[in-house]
Amino acid sequence: MSKNLEISMLYDFYGELLTEKQQEVIELYYNEDLSLAEIAMHSGITRQGVRDSIKRGESQLLEFERQLGLAKRFGQIEALLEQIRENAAEIEQINSRMFDSKEIENRLMKIIALTRSVGEL
Amino acid sequence: MSKNLEISMLYDFYGELLTEKQQEVIELYYNEDLSLAEIAMHSGITRQGVRDSIKRGESQLLEFERQLGLAKRFGQIEALLEQIRENAAEIEQINSRMFDSKEIENRLMKIIALTRSVGEL
Repeated sequence: MSKNLEISMLYDFYGELLTEKQQEVIELYYNEDLSLAEIAMHSGITRQGVRDSIKRGESQLLEFERQLGLAKRFGQIEALLEQIRENAAEIEQINSRMFDSKEIENRLMKIIALTRSVGEL
Repeated sequence: MSKNLEISMLYDFYGELLTEKQQEVIELYYNEDLSLAEIAMHSGITRQGVRDSIKRGESQLLEFERQLGLAKRFGQIEALLEQIRENAAEIEQINSRMFDSKEIENRLMKIIALTRSVGEL
């Protein structure tokens, strides 16, 4: 069983839909990076029980994403924001090279800051 | 029972997590704008059965949103994109008034188009 980034990301989106027990073990396994044996000790269930619980949780997270696709949509939004930032950076270069307008510069900085604040939502 | 926009929007996000029956009645009620009596005739269940199924579906959609808050997050992203568009429009005005740079204009158009394409994801 390999810890993968996708599960960790899907957990951020859909974790609240899992049972409390699944949330606990997935949190310990993915976010706290504990081993199965450590989680078993911590939660008072067997190593196999921990493994099953994580596996079930993972399947459900993947199924939520298959049904709703919201993590994918957010990923696409991030890619568009990156393109907006690139265009804003290009305008900034043109402006500083040719016109040096503070009015334009300030608004470009706002645009770039706004694209970054989406990631914090 | 009033048809409200919030439910319709939440259905776009979380509809796939409802049972097939709930999806069917909510679709007919909110998207096709059929009455409870019409849906009852169409699905061969009682008007009260339709009403209960819609109510249960609505509660679940609201509960998904309470747990995950993804519709709210998308709404906040839309608001940020609107601010990006406003700043881009201001730069466009400054540019056309003072510098008339096609290089800047083209990139602003790209930025505005990118903000709009997020809504289509």
